[in-house]
Amino acid sequence: MRWTQTLIPTLREAPAEAEIVSHQLLLRAGLVRKLAGGVYSFLPLGLRALRKVERIVREEMDRAGAIEVLLPALQPPEIWQQSGRYETARQVLYKVYDSARREWVLSPTAEEVITLLAAAEIQSYRQLPKNFYQISVKFRDEIRPRFGLMRAREFIMKDAYSFDVSDEAAQQSYQRMYDAYTRIFARCGLRTFPVEADTGVIGGTLSHEFMVPAETGENEVAYCEACGYAANVEKAVSGVKAESAPGGAATPGPEKFATPGVQTIEDLTRPPYNVPAARQIKTLVYLVESRPLIVLLRGDDQLNEAKLAARLGTTTFRPATAEEIFTLLGAHPGSLGAVSSTLPGAAPPVWADERLRGATDMTTGANEDGFHLRHVDVDRDLRVNEWADLRTVRAGEPCARCGKPLQIRRAIEVGHVFKLGTKYSEKLGSGFIDESGVRRPCVMGCYGIGVTRTLQAVIEQSHDADGIIWPVSVAPYEVCLTPLQMSPGSPVREVAERLYEALQREGIEVILDDREERPGVKFKDADLVGFPFRVNIGEKSLARGQVEIKRRAGGALEVVGVDEAAGRVATLVREARAALQVGG
Amino acid sequence: MRWTQTLIPTLREAPAEAEIVSHQLLLRAGLVRKLAGGVYSFLPLGLRALRKVERIVREEMDRAGAIEVLLPALQPPEIWQQSGRYETARQVLYKVYDSARREWVLSPTAEEVITLLAAAEIQSYRQLPKNFYQISVKFRDEIRPRFGLMRAREFIMKDAYSFDVSDEAAQQSYQRMYDAYTRIFARCGLRTFPVEADTGVIGGTLSHEFMVPAETGENEVAYCEACGYAANVEKAVSGVKAESAPGGAATPGPEKFATPGVQTIEDLTRPPYNVPAARQIKTLVYLVESRPLIVLLRGDDQLNEAKLAARLGTTTFRPATAEEIFTLLGAHPGSLGAVSSTLPGAAPPVWADERLRGATDMTTGANEDGFHLRHVDVDRDLRVNEWADLRTVRAGEPCARCGKPLQIRRAIEVGHVFKLGTKYSEKLGSGFIDESGVRRPCVMGCYGIGVTRTLQAVIEQSHDADGIIWPVSVAPYEVCLTPLQMSPGSPVREVAERLYEALQREGIEVILDDREERPGVKFKDADLVGFPFRVNIGEKSLARGQVEIKRRAGGALEVVGVDEAAGRVATLVREARAALQVGG
Repeated sequence: MRWTQTLIPTLREAPAEAEIVSHQLLLRAGLVRKLAGGVYSFLPLGLRALRKVERIVREEMDRAGAIEVLLPALQPPEIWQQSGRYETARQVLYKVYDSARREWVLSPTAEEVITLLAAAEIQSYRQLPKNFYQISVKFRDEIRPRFGLMRAREFIMKDAYSFDVSDEAAQQSYQRMYDAYTRIFARCGLRTFPVEADTGVIGGTLSHEFMVPAETGENEVAYCEACGYAANVEKAVSGVKAESAPGGAATPGPEKFATPGVQTIEDLTRPPYNVPAARQIKTLVYLVESRPLIVLLRGDDQLNEAKLAARLGTTTFRPATAEEIFTLLGAHPGSLGAVSSTLPGAAPPVWADERLRGATDMTTGANEDGFHLRHVDVDRDLRVNEWADLRTVRAGEPCARCGKPLQIRRAIEVGHVFKLGTKYSEKLGSGFIDESGVRRPCVMGCYGIGVTRTLQAVIEQSHDADGIIWPVSVAPYEVCLTPLQMSPGSPVREVAERLYEALQREGIEVILDDREERPGVKFKDADLVGFPFRVNIGEKSLARGQVEIKRRAGGALEVVGVDEAAGRVATLVREARAALQVGG
Repeated sequence: MRWTQTLIPTLREAPAEAEIVSHQLLLRAGLVRKLAGGVYSFLPLGLRALRKVERIVREEMDRAGAIEVLLPALQPPEIWQQSGRYETARQVLYKVYDSARREWVLSPTAEEVITLLAAAEIQSYRQLPKNFYQISVKFRDEIRPRFGLMRAREFIMKDAYSFDVSDEAAQQSYQRMYDAYTRIFARCGLRTFPVEADTGVIGGTLSHEFMVPAETGENEVAYCEACGYAANVEKAVSGVKAESAPGGAATPGPEKFATPGVQTIEDLTRPPYNVPAARQIKTLVYLVESRPLIVLLRGDDQLNEAKLAARLGTTTFRPATAEEIFTLLGAHPGSLGAVSSTLPGAAPPVWADERLRGATDMTTGANEDGFHLRHVDVDRDLRVNEWADLRTVRAGEPCARCGKPLQIRRAIEVGHVFKLGTKYSEKLGSGFIDESGVRRPCVMGCYGIGVTRTLQAVIEQSHDADGIIWPVSVAPYEVCLTPLQMSPGSPVREVAERLYEALQREGIEVILDDREERPGVKFKDADLVGFPFRVNIGEKSLARGQVEIKRRAGGALEVVGVDEAAGRVATLVREARAALQVGG
């Protein structure tokens, strides 16, 4: 391709809208343009890079035995009602209306369609296992889209759905996808690490996310360098549960004391009270599908709503308002507690974090504004309906596996694998007749890769002050030829044209910067767009019969004879390709 | 690919929903499944064929110098308001609402987005010409989707948009696309013919459609076998305009006569009136953007609404109701006319079809229920505000170019090229600074191919009673290997597996029917799906050291030695490929 024949509108300055460097570089390198919040047009070079990610995904999915299909974006709401997700995924579902005022939804994922398809077309164990995937545009109603392609309203996703005869077989399908994902991201030149993940609104029993470490990531991951444990903070556990509970000997019994003006855990840690947060019980009130629930945590712990949702089996809950709480418990936040004697007759159920089990001599609200209770022994004074791991782990806590301190870092989720079990197959009727003639539901898995997000994650991970540093596997072009002048008939131009033809014949993806621009402009643009190799063709070096090959990553410069140039560049490109051809 | 590892749910019977054979075969061959009216899932083989059409389109667009981009489906309504299409394309625009009740539209085409992109990124004549294309999913609110992929709510379209400095340059871009389209359809194995077309709601000055002749097509094309003239009936003209007008000598003047019970042109042709339709004036009343318009045609002609729309420059019109007409003219349909003396003072404008020019001794309604006027001379008795070609041509009329009789046939539109002029570039601000420093609007063209429709058109044109007959260029697989039994260790199976490997090594797209099914079932399925070549491997012929190669098109059978089989099949496939490699 010739630079002047495509469209590469580079920008010197980063548009104000772009908060993170990969978003800035997407715009500055002329890869995408924003049409509206969270909605982007792919310009020629952005699309080339995107197609390369797609191709890697496709090759590895095919290699793993998955079969490509293409499912509609426009879907009838009835099938979402059938799966129950019309409600649970309500917040992200775009509604479409046709001229007859009939409603449709725009697909964010395709569990419903594929499960119905399997229900219609798969009848026998002989047809299993099957794994269907598609690479297609998806839609998600993001209230606050941000970070470019990272959290967009319209994006490209690879979604796959496996159908198996048993849990064990489903586990194998899961593992095949897990392995495929590992290869996919490695081939994209991305350093990712898998973490245990919450199954969220999709549901299911086992889940891993593939994470790209990045300061700007929207996920937090807890990990242990010693033993390799890694989990999304939404799901992560630590060894503190196993610590002995605070307190010690049993106390005589709860004692009420006045705490005028105390509103928070923090307030009570200060004089004259001096109750450490770890010796307080934090009392939260939630409305779960309109029914109240009391949630208790140690005063220094934070509730992890993802863990609560997983345990509840629904995301339809919210904190109660101060008014709702007063109606329920007769006190306002700041003085709340769950000591049985202070609760009303028909008290809401009480869920407590495991870390409170057996704790003695604790302090908590008295359900009377301005009063607390001390000397509270949890097992004696509280009636806990359900114990659960509900707290968020913190950096420095001991790893649950090996006891070494956990660390926490931010990351970008680029892939997600789920064991779904039979949740969807039962609701949507996907089953099979087994070898003994009995009909059973298919055991499913689902597997997503944010293709557009992966593209941007590559940039987030691989750039420098001058611009993008593309891995050769996803670079829009592998080589940029940069003649320092383009006067017709000049030797510089002639050599550039000759190299352009020679490299194309070698199967190298090459772009010729045929603009009549100053060398500095061409260098800056090539570095900004981030082609893995640049060949500088200038009068001076040409006079010595030489051209320069510059490697974008690291900046190594190699001077080669004009006649060897095409061969040498082709070799360098092939070596770079081979380095990313993971396991095949 | 092994048959058992993909999904090919063939059907013996055509589902009742499928009215035309290509739609039936799409379903019966297991290529697609319906999710909802006009919304289809592509199963593995359907997707493979679709991707091959896409690849041909992409290669020819690239060859023609067009640059691929990818534009969003989700678009802000404001840009459609800016172009004026929010109103004119209203009927086909899906409206989307997000959780903040903000409205979006789903893109049926992308003139607005690409023109705004050009407005932002193209500033100089040096950047022109440019032609951007995308292959992407589109949405169209079809009230009555039908015929499978032919008229769907969600479909895949290739749309391209060219930007030029002048009309002459735009004409060259148009011609390049016209030539590319000719190659694309030929490479898909489709017999198409280009016809002059109406520019419709897209607007513009010149347009051709690429048509596939088919009884089931939704378009009518008028064509002349003698000189090659061909045009969509919406646009077609014939030589009858030039015929001498009916009548002859001038008449003394209009004469009113009673016509009790006459409601139609047909009624007046019968006794006691006996007025031939050709001697009547048909009077129609339309409301154009709420304002009335009288349209006159010869009694035996039909109004062509597309021609009226083109002349009006809007599609926002409808026939007036009987009540509205009575209010306007004081009479009901059946007795309407436009003789000046019978019209009210502030009469609506009168448009007449060219064929009425100079007609004498005509009969028309008197604008008084139950009465008509005879001896009407058009030039004398009517005040026509505008003469235009408004009639629909009919088979047998003389060709406007050569005078030979026109024929009419039905066809499927698979592609459409438009010269747009500056309609969009002016409204959306796409311009350039020319060589003399003056800013001018870009001259645009737009070019569409219904990719999913093209796929189905191939089937509509190429099938027999047994199923699809794929051209090798778009076949899901080029060769089907059909072992007549699959017992483990049998020579039949062993030869089949050996051929499977050998053909893959030769770069042939091959599917191995590894099902344990009766030969008859395998033959029927292979013919139904329509693989271009089938290789039958059976015990009997194998005992003679032979296998059979069957060609789907024509059914020719060739018996070859086992050892030559792979080479011979590869040769046949390569010959078939070469036959469709049009001009390249």
